[in-house]
Amino acid sequence: HMCDRPKNTNVRLSLPAVCIVWQTAMIILFGVFIRYNEESDTHWVEYKKENNIPSDIENDFYFRYPSFQDVHVMIFVGFGFLMTFLKRYSFGAVGFNFLIAAFGLQWALLMQGWFHSLDYTDGKIKIGVENLINADFCVAGCLIAYGAVLGKVSPVQLMVLTLFGITLFAVEEYIILDLIHARDAGGSMVIHTFGGYYGLSISWMLYRPNLDQSSRLQGSVYHSDLFAMIGTLFLWMFWPSFNSAITDHGDGQHRAAINTYLALASTVLTTVAVSSLFQKHGKLDMVHIQNSTLAGGVAVGTAAEFMLMPYGSLIVGFCCGILSTLGYIYLTPFMEKYMKIQDTCGIHNLHAMPGVIGGIVGAITAAAASESVYGAEGLINTFDFEGEFKNMVPTKQGGHQAAGLCVAICFGIGGGILVGFILRLPIWGDPADDNCFDDEPYWELPEDEESIPPVLQYNNHAINKDV
Amino acid sequence: HMCDRPKNTNVRLSLPAVCIVWQTAMIILFGVFIRYNEESDTHWVEYKKENNIPSDIENDFYFRYPSFQDVHVMIFVGFGFLMTFLKRYSFGAVGFNFLIAAFGLQWALLMQGWFHSLDYTDGKIKIGVENLINADFCVAGCLIAYGAVLGKVSPVQLMVLTLFGITLFAVEEYIILDLIHARDAGGSMVIHTFGGYYGLSISWMLYRPNLDQSSRLQGSVYHSDLFAMIGTLFLWMFWPSFNSAITDHGDGQHRAAINTYLALASTVLTTVAVSSLFQKHGKLDMVHIQNSTLAGGVAVGTAAEFMLMPYGSLIVGFCCGILSTLGYIYLTPFMEKYMKIQDTCGIHNLHAMPGVIGGIVGAITAAAASESVYGAEGLINTFDFEGEFKNMVPTKQGGHQAAGLCVAICFGIGGGILVGFILRLPIWGDPADDNCFDDEPYWELPEDEESIPPVLQYNNHAINKDV
Amino acid sequence: HMCDRPKNTNVRLSLPAVCIVWQTAMIILFGVFIRYNEESDTHWVEYKKENNIPSDIENDFYFRYPSFQDVHVMIFVGFGFLMTFLKRYSFGAVGFNFLIAAFGLQWALLMQGWFHSLDYTDGKIKIGVENLINADFCVAGCLIAYGAVLGKVSPVQLMVLTLFGITLFAVEEYIILDLIHARDAGGSMVIHTFGGYYGLSISWMLYRPNLDQSSRLQGSVYHSDLFAMIGTLFLWMFWPSFNSAITDHGDGQHRAAINTYLALASTVLTTVAVSSLFQKHGKLDMVHIQNSTLAGGVAVGTAAEFMLMPYGSLIVGFCCGILSTLGYIYLTPFMEKYMKIQDTCGIHNLHAMPGVIGGIVGAITAAAASESVYGAEGLINTFDFEGEFKNMVPTKQGGHQAAGLCVAICFGIGGGILVGFILRLPIWGDPADDNCFDDEPYWELPEDEESIPPVLQYNNHAINKDV
Repeated sequence: HMCDRPKNTNVRLSLPAVCIVWQTAMIILFGVFIRYNEESDTHWVEYKKENNIPSDIENDFYFRYPSFQDVHVMIFVGFGFLMTFLKRYSFGAVGFNFLIAAFGLQWALLMQGWFHSLDYTDGKIKIGVENLINADFCVAGCLIAYGAVLGKVSPVQLMVLTLFGITLFAVEEYIILDLIHARDAGGSMVIHTFGGYYGLSISWMLYRPNLDQSSRLQGSVYHSDLFAMIGTLFLWMFWPSFNSAITDHGDGQHRAAINTYLALASTVLTTVAVSSLFQKHGKLDMVHIQNSTLAGGVAVGTAAEFMLMPYGSLIVGFCCGILSTLGYIYLTPFMEKYMKIQDTCGIHNLHAMPGVIGGIVGAITAAAASESVYGAEGLINTFDFEGEFKNMVPTKQGGHQAAGLCVAICFGIGGGILVGFILRLPIWGDPADDNCFDDEPYWELPEDEESIPPVLQYNNHAINKDV
Repeated sequence: HMCDRPKNTNVRLSLPAVCIVWQTAMIILFGVFIRYNEESDTHWVEYKKENNIPSDIENDFYFRYPSFQDVHVMIFVGFGFLMTFLKRYSFGAVGFNFLIAAFGLQWALLMQGWFHSLDYTDGKIKIGVENLINADFCVAGCLIAYGAVLGKVSPVQLMVLTLFGITLFAVEEYIILDLIHARDAGGSMVIHTFGGYYGLSISWMLYRPNLDQSSRLQGSVYHSDLFAMIGTLFLWMFWPSFNSAITDHGDGQHRAAINTYLALASTVLTTVAVSSLFQKHGKLDMVHIQNSTLAGGVAVGTAAEFMLMPYGSLIVGFCCGILSTLGYIYLTPFMEKYMKIQDTCGIHNLHAMPGVIGGIVGAITAAAASESVYGAEGLINTFDFEGEFKNMVPTKQGGHQAAGLCVAICFGIGGGILVGFILRLPIWGDPADDNCFDDEPYWELPEDEESIPPVLQYNNHAINKDV
Repeated sequence: HMCDRPKNTNVRLSLPAVCIVWQTAMIILFGVFIRYNEESDTHWVEYKKENNIPSDIENDFYFRYPSFQDVHVMIFVGFGFLMTFLKRYSFGAVGFNFLIAAFGLQWALLMQGWFHSLDYTDGKIKIGVENLINADFCVAGCLIAYGAVLGKVSPVQLMVLTLFGITLFAVEEYIILDLIHARDAGGSMVIHTFGGYYGLSISWMLYRPNLDQSSRLQGSVYHSDLFAMIGTLFLWMFWPSFNSAITDHGDGQHRAAINTYLALASTVLTTVAVSSLFQKHGKLDMVHIQNSTLAGGVAVGTAAEFMLMPYGSLIVGFCCGILSTLGYIYLTPFMEKYMKIQDTCGIHNLHAMPGVIGGIVGAITAAAASESVYGAEGLINTFDFEGEFKNMVPTKQGGHQAAGLCVAICFGIGGGILVGFILRLPIWGDPADDNCFDDEPYWELPEDEESIPPVLQYNNHAINKDV
């Protein structure tokens, strides 16, 4: 088994090779396939006239760019800093998050482009701001998975995890959104459920029975917990933008933002309640505050664009704050002990479980939709009952939503087992069991001499001489 | 008196109870009262046609959402991290800020909704993005108050402070903006003056004569000061969005952003000047840089939408940088020693005093407004001289502004005394005098063993053995 | 030479004097010259009618404000935190960055206003949101220069550096953009090339042969590297907004954002590759991740609004990641040893060299532009072949771009030598050679006693008694 062989964490050849070769491949594929769409091409000035578009402000850039930037912050600062909580793995958290997101978004533009933005007249993928958002979304799935294996894998393994993760994501997304015609504005199913189970399955495949040899490093320090709060808060604040970024112009974006804002607020209170209630002396646990406060945003993802109603959003957030925090207290230790799933960041409680809840909420809300609440046109608009789906009805849509959720779970678990199998090959430079959660194998580290105050330096000098 | 009784900081029952019960109440009240407004409801597609709205981009979401997100960052990262400066109260700073803001915004949507967004046809509050901004604004008043009592109260007390603070805010806001018809775009009066005096009065009611028993913790460390600068900068940068978030579409938002940008720039220079001038050796004090640099944004709040002129904004910022920094040097120690007001973050210098200045600047600028500067239509638009106020004139408006300022001060002081009285009850789990400014009573804390460098660990080992 | 005289770092008179006097001058000049433009003035309501503007959403505020705020974050948090990497100069990094940016943007509004926004009918500069963006851009040049001299100069010297830097910037910008008619959307030439060489020349003039006396402080600690990553990521994420902030409405902004997003993604992979390949054991160096990952954004600045094509952006990023990282490994030590240029932050590798590459890429891309790719109208729009330049052709434009690059280099080097000469005067309060990279001369520092864990405090107590 993995832990029995001596480990070589030197990635001096493999990491540069992967980065250079894959980036070169991206350049070639982009050269062959990717072009600007009509709104980002210089021909826009003519396109506007031909389509009687009265103003530049109708360019999709102005509808979506602020949301895009918020999502971008969530991907790089949000996910990156959320994972800095470990005392000696902060470089790996924020640095490898940066690396795999930067690679993943390129590969996502291609993969999603082939499925969704291919112009059949010239065989090119035409991209605009919505593609950038979707690429960031696609990357989110892999970053979620990173959370489960944080500190236990090499950067080369993470690149492989991302390559396959993006590929699987694009396929399941196509099946769920296009073939099954499920709606999933904020990606409860396609992003969180898939990403969560993908990461958990990989972690299960890479189970380390002797991981307790690194237990000295599997905790936080005061300031690393504060760095993690930067990640938490930027995720929390910008989640309304995440869930509304690609919904319909107008009321769709507006409503999705409101629902997410409310669900997240509600989650904070129940997270605090459960965190306090289940600790000796009622003290709050930073792990819960950093993570479970976000569960409401996950769970409201699918239904955010629906008429979930403000109180509905609060209820979803209420339940998820409780369940997610209980997950950290009971489920994570249980899964490690009895199911051999080591989940460093607790992504099951933050993404997988709330994602499934989000899928279910979406299915129920869709099935319960009615013309009296949505209006006739509103119902068609919201659920996109057009084209080949113009005979769709809400109850049937509810079934399709549930089917979408199943696809996401299957792709997550199946894909994770497959990729986990690949990642078990003894060639990737992963750390030994007593060297996990440590930046030392992959990073040049500064010597933290300044943390010895002068008085102590003097005393130690004295000690060395006199004692 | 408070400090004479033994303290029990265990909030294991009270905190969860308050969170769960109040959150449940929110769900019920939202269920009864809160619905989407016409721009966030699926009926928007029909509403657009009926009202000849040519494009989705005319949805208020696109006018206000970027500003909303900036304000949201100020509330959660800005206020939260600004208060992390204490060496051992950073969890409480950012964590309790998170908790009370998440609760406060829900209660604010209800309270402000009843006053401002109630649809009398069906008795429902109709919410959209502007309500979210206003809820964040409302919360800001309570977060300001938190600054005065930082480190000296329990989370349960903070929840009570917020419940009453939001309620008082909504009432004084209704009186000032609707009954008195004062203008207050950036909330110099309704947010900063009210919030400042509310917090100071509470702190006065909760005076701790033996607080010096916690003086070892009432300071910063190098990196906690850097975390606080994250808060400072996000407040500083996004303040133009704060002051312009709910002003009139078009020139109103545009002008408010410019005025605030300029006032804040000017404040930085005079803060640096005074900080250096009043220290031995001319060294800068981080407390001033973290706080007084923001005073210009507070003071330009009311007049930001007026024709204050770019140089006018610079003058306001100039004065406030000086006064606020002098406040930290002279006034805060004076207030603690002679007035029994212990103001942890110096909110008097950052919010209360600049808020009052902002109210006065607003009154003068309004009184001096003229058609020659504003244009006939511009004057009516800017001061909303319409409906029952269509016979209003600038000089009279100036008087109304001054009246509004008085109301804000009275509500702040009166409300603070009332709430302070409630918070003195010996049931809230607040810390003892020698246990203030410490996360230990309310948070599970990591053991910071990593801050001992290996060489020292070895030496200590040697000491334990040899000495 | 400088290092031979005794040093007095007391700036108690000079710093306040400079701040107060210059700020007062700003107020006077703003009073004489600066007014709101037609979109931020209350007359907008009339202006709209006269110009048949159908909606407030056509106000430039809504096209540019989200980008402005992103740029604002880059200036204050991005540059400020990027420079916090030194173990004991983080206050100076973020604090002096704050000071000089706040001054610089005011002076930039005036200098750029005289050249670009002067209304000849009344002799006033009329400002709106685009002026705020340009002022932030102008400041960026000086903040880049600060990176070269970080830790080696006094705040008063930085104010002088900024005063002259802004002035030189406004002149070279006018020559390059208006007289030469070069295009430079993201400022590869006018911002990065100029700012880079300006800072390097100043650093060369202020060469300190005995700087190794401060070498104990010229490094990072674990958490200071994490603070720096906050700066890196906010620069990286918002760079698409930077390069698109002042490009043409519609497709121009859209395309510039896409190109920058892609170039930056590509840079990350090649930076990681080279960083790993050139270190013993393949470990990554935080210096490279913090800085070189940004080089692609610099290098795509000029051509971001052109039809660079998505693969073209990836290629630019690919090359810059490699060159910039190699620069940190080989060029920075070489320049210090043989050229007497001490470049604290390595701005040559992050700004100067990528800026020159960006200028060259811009010249080539412009020269290669054709109607078949751009469309007839698109070509005119993109390169602004209108008015006195209506007979311009792409090949000639390429030459003008190259000429613009030369002007930027000359202004940078010439201006830097001039200002460096002034900064060598022995009156500015700069630190001694053994006191560089230290906040102690200019900041009141907290005593970091908390970093001694209790067990050690006890032991030291024992030592003091027993040894």
